Amino acid sequence: MRSPAANAELALLLEAAAAPTPGNVDRERDHDTLRLEHFLAGAAGARSGLAMAADGVPLGDAFETAVAGMADQSGGNTQFGALLLLCPLVRTAAEGAVTPASARTVVENTTVEDAAGFYRAFEHVDVRVEDPPESFEALDVRRGVDAIPALRERGLTLFDVLAASADHDGVAREWTNRFERTFRAASLLALPDRNTTIGAADEPKPVIDWLANADGVLEHASRVHLLLLSEQPDSLITTAHDEATAESVRERAEKLCPQNGAPPSLDARREFATDLIDRGINPGMTADHLAAGLFIALERHVITV
Amino acid sequence: MRSPAANAELALLLEAAAAPTPGNVDRERDHDTLRLEHFLAGAAGARSGLAMAADGVPLGDAFETAVAGMADQSGGNTQFGALLLLCPLVRTAAEGAVTPASARTVVENTTVEDAAGFYRAFEHVDVRVEDPPESFEALDVRRGVDAIPALRERGLTLFDVLAASADHDGVAREWTNRFERTFRAASLLALPDRNTTIGAADEPKPVIDWLANADGVLEHASRVHLLLLSEQPDSLITTAHDEATAESVRERAEKLCPQNGAPPSLDARREFATDLIDRGINPGMTADHLAAGLFIALERHVITV
Repeated sequence: MRSPAANAELALLLEAAAAPTPGNVDRERDHDTLRLEHFLAGAAGARSGLAMAADGVPLGDAFETAVAGMADQSGGNTQFGALLLLCPLVRTAAEGAVTPASARTVVENTTVEDAAGFYRAFEHVDVRVEDPPESFEALDVRRGVDAIPALRERGLTLFDVLAASADHDGVAREWTNRFERTFRAASLLALPDRNTTIGAADEPKPVIDWLANADGVLEHASRVHLLLLSEQPDSLITTAHDEATAESVRERAEKLCPQNGAPPSLDARREFATDLIDRGINPGMTADHLAAGLFIALERHVITV
Repeated sequence: MRSPAANAELALLLEAAAAPTPGNVDRERDHDTLRLEHFLAGAAGARSGLAMAADGVPLGDAFETAVAGMADQSGGNTQFGALLLLCPLVRTAAEGAVTPASARTVVENTTVEDAAGFYRAFEHVDVRVEDPPESFEALDVRRGVDAIPALRERGLTLFDVLAASADHDGVAREWTNRFERTFRAASLLALPDRNTTIGAADEPKPVIDWLANADGVLEHASRVHLLLLSEQPDSLITTAHDEATAESVRERAEKLCPQNGAPPSLDARREFATDLIDRGINPGMTADHLAAGLFIALERHVITV
């Protein structure tokens, strides 16, 4: 049986390979300087940090180690946001069942030292982020370790730091909303077993026929990616471009997602994917939610590889 | 810096993804029931066994753990032969520089208990093998653990067991010939740095122009795969089909490999790849040599990901 760290790494690999995932590097598409091989190296490199998260090492240290290992390839940032979701989820899995409540407990228990590890992680890789609000300027993550004294002075935990970005960052938001989108992704991956409940008990059971007949986990993951993309504007697109661009991508994904009947044509999905790559539009938040959802689905045995 | 275990896993992933690799699952092609996702899961699953090999655990135990982890997916055997090469090479790397001489020392030092681990590994996965010679019938690997008493009675080490298959198994042969083909693969991967010497000092320096201008490590690995395939009939094709089939594949690879000038057309390589998949012809030995060669190239820093 794969360990939580092995499942987390496999989730990174499956997210990277699933195709098409419009705008993201996938099995069929590379960016100019960021290619599939960098994702493979990034996932293998992150493994020891993920294992630290499982082993009870302080979460900030585990995250920093995972990011440093992920960044030890020449393509740049591959899956920083996914690691920010996976580290607490791996810890949760190592301690027991992965549920919204148990994951919430893990992130609420993070410390100021965990936050320091998070800031150190930014020394290893360039990550695209929004400008922080004025009151948070001293804590801009782009300051890296230089922000740590301010962090200690204010006594902010890693949970506090991410809560401050939750309104504009769809990965940080997962820390504050019981990993809602991550569990949504896992629920969609749980199809066609319609009786599986993942996440909140009151979550409406998904009834999307065209997810149910995917051939293999990579095709299933590609379809879930499209559906996730149709449900929310991607915050990384907003950061890198603007809200209108993020919304236009969401709308195009929605048009490709029939609520019933046949799946969207593979040709149309591939055209969408290539178009976003050509335009340099990368829905990284959605990819991060998918990767973390794949982890939960692997841990809960609702998908089989 | 990636650990030897991380580099070994990355080598498995790069070999699996490099495309086209005629007859093998790759980034562009699946077999019917054996798909890229199974290779991703197999590589992630093998990691802990590879880490044991680095940590000095008896090599047979490390190999068995790596195989059990590799086999913990629904596709069947993905990279058994590659693990048989990687485990001793990871041990070698953990102890110092990876050279033909140091790798030879590691395999020569294997024990009867290592051989027992090798036989236990066959309990986890179906591997296609030749019938053994008559004197070795009690030691047919397909007997799995039932062969272990005979093994102990005869006092055979893992080196001895593999030496007995070296004449007809191109992976076992690597254990007895100082990993000659593995180092050949690493040398070809070291291009375009023509001054790098990998392996035996008297090895002729490769002068294959069309390897030198590959764009990225996956394309480079694909070209090296074709060249390896052109140099020797693949012993796994001989086992699964016959010598004539293996030789015809070698000849077709050779025709695609110009010794100078432009690289072979990507279209022709892809046509070759799809044709072998369609005919169920799988050059698994060559893939194993490539995977192990990628590991050496990563350890020796002659390729960059």
